[in-house]
Amino acid sequence: MDATPAASPAPTQTRTPVTVTITGAGGQIGYALLFRIAAGDMLGPDQPIRLRLLEIPQGMRAAEGAALELQDCAFPLLRDVEVTDDAAVAFAGANRALLVGSRPRAAGMERSDLLAANAGIFAPQGAAIAANAAADVRVLTVGNPANTNALIAAAAADGIPSERFSALTRLDHDRAVGQLSAALDVGPAALQGVTIWGNHSATQFPDVAHATVDGAPVLAALAEKLGGADAATTWLDDVFIPRVARRGAEIIEVRGSSSVASAANAAIAHVRDEALGTGPGWTSAALVSRGEYGVPEGIVCSFPVTSDGSGYRVVEGLHLDERAQARLQASVAELVAEREAVRELTGA
Amino acid sequence: MDATPAASPAPTQTRTPVTVTITGAGGQIGYALLFRIAAGDMLGPDQPIRLRLLEIPQGMRAAEGAALELQDCAFPLLRDVEVTDDAAVAFAGANRALLVGSRPRAAGMERSDLLAANAGIFAPQGAAIAANAAADVRVLTVGNPANTNALIAAAAADGIPSERFSALTRLDHDRAVGQLSAALDVGPAALQGVTIWGNHSATQFPDVAHATVDGAPVLAALAEKLGGADAATTWLDDVFIPRVARRGAEIIEVRGSSSVASAANAAIAHVRDEALGTGPGWTSAALVSRGEYGVPEGIVCSFPVTSDGSGYRVVEGLHLDERAQARLQASVAELVAEREAVRELTGA
Repeated sequence: MDATPAASPAPTQTRTPVTVTITGAGGQIGYALLFRIAAGDMLGPDQPIRLRLLEIPQGMRAAEGAALELQDCAFPLLRDVEVTDDAAVAFAGANRALLVGSRPRAAGMERSDLLAANAGIFAPQGAAIAANAAADVRVLTVGNPANTNALIAAAAADGIPSERFSALTRLDHDRAVGQLSAALDVGPAALQGVTIWGNHSATQFPDVAHATVDGAPVLAALAEKLGGADAATTWLDDVFIPRVARRGAEIIEVRGSSSVASAANAAIAHVRDEALGTGPGWTSAALVSRGEYGVPEGIVCSFPVTSDGSGYRVVEGLHLDERAQARLQASVAELVAEREAVRELTGA
Repeated sequence: MDATPAASPAPTQTRTPVTVTITGAGGQIGYALLFRIAAGDMLGPDQPIRLRLLEIPQGMRAAEGAALELQDCAFPLLRDVEVTDDAAVAFAGANRALLVGSRPRAAGMERSDLLAANAGIFAPQGAAIAANAAADVRVLTVGNPANTNALIAAAAADGIPSERFSALTRLDHDRAVGQLSAALDVGPAALQGVTIWGNHSATQFPDVAHATVDGAPVLAALAEKLGGADAATTWLDDVFIPRVARRGAEIIEVRGSSSVASAANAAIAHVRDEALGTGPGWTSAALVSRGEYGVPEGIVCSFPVTSDGSGYRVVEGLHLDERAQARLQASVAELVAEREAVRELTGA
């Protein structure tokens, strides 16, 4: 026989496994997440993983099917998989929780109905996390309305510091980078300093004022490409910002269904950079405000953030001009209104 | 501001991009493949990629939607994405082709109809690869019946050495490892030397005669676990072999749809190990037989294989006992019959 020596030996797996809990694990985003997490895309190629899949009873078969397929991949990093519809079991010992399952907006549903339905999901999950998760648990909310769902979970999680909760705006961030990349005809890695401010909704503010392309200001590069500073401003206001903010609808129109693999990829990138550290520049994530940039304390707002591996912190000290302030305030006003609505609904 | 230094700097991307063509890219397995390939799971974290997505006209919108979502991920390794229904465009300059799209068996469809429908897909694709792909192109067939589809493509690809064509049996291989891992209560990485022989069909032969667990024979470990050598043989014949061979049907029963993410993972693992080298031991892949183990030359049969990064080669010299020979011959007979049927249909 001519078996050759190992070109890429299996990594030594001496690390303690990390327990990752995923809610809505039987759904499409869950399905797109599980295999990449088990392959090491989220926590690195030498980090063993335990997966806990939480579903509602009608989602259990799909989650169990995914668990069988995970077994069929023989992932070296995957220690075990548990499928349950009991939140206490799902969050037991969780070091990382990805809250993906949420109640989507149905036709004719009022905003208050949507918020109430999701409060009924995320408040019990926050409580179950507080009661069962590991002491170092960190929680990413993916299910929409993500910012306010994160707020609800954090408020219900007695004893867990609020900075352990975040909501996903990395998809908006990466969409903004993707659009700039196409407009400037450069690779995404050439772009730094893009920020998503505010809510993961149509009011979000994708901001390139501090962004650079190969180290030079993006605004100057856009002006050169588009024929002047005014043309660049017009493009940002009329094309870039609305396109990023409404990209989800564009994807639905083309695909016939919502963003799935890109949402899963953004969740993986969010946790990866939080756990292993951000690269050059910063990324965007929605964190519980401590009053940075005049954002009211306690709401979950997207900011420019970095991590050295110990958790996201807001990049402070960026200057926002009057127009940028107005955009941020408009999105913040929406978040404040969501918080008020939830308070009325839950009596919190 | 408190921006921290880069914990994981972007990899230097000085390598020449690899062009990867995926057929049926708008389908479910395509969707599960694209994002992992773009993330570097298949060709490594420092290999830039160009993606070429081939679809039939009715699949174009789904493929275009996937391309938009790829843009929304801002993958540092992804240089560009092209979506087309023209095989000449799709395979232009391809270094790697993954033939995923195929005609599935419809209710009431005769085997000869299925083979003929797929010959009508894979023969033109083989010709388009020969006419348009890069000189170093390698082709993996995923679409079923995978072995014979690979045979058809290879036969139509004038001038491309037949060893550049393979068919996927890695999913069967990893399913076998997953089942052994559960039975022996060890991690998948502890298992080496499992082989899938024959056709990617219910006649396949998952063989553990040369397999080891932590370096010791699997057969002995099974005998110890199950209460003797006879019990181990019974388990292998009555549980393990049929379960691996019919796992696809089990997944459909639980999930309500066929294996998608695990099939995509197997395709990624097949190409990764072919391109970057197999680890310890060997894996399984269907290659064009050169007569190894008495398998008739020219049919595409699954063997134990290794790669040092320059392509898969059959591990020779393993002893097959009488029962193993009989199982291999039964699967080979099916492959020979498929070849005969295709010859009659295509007049080749």
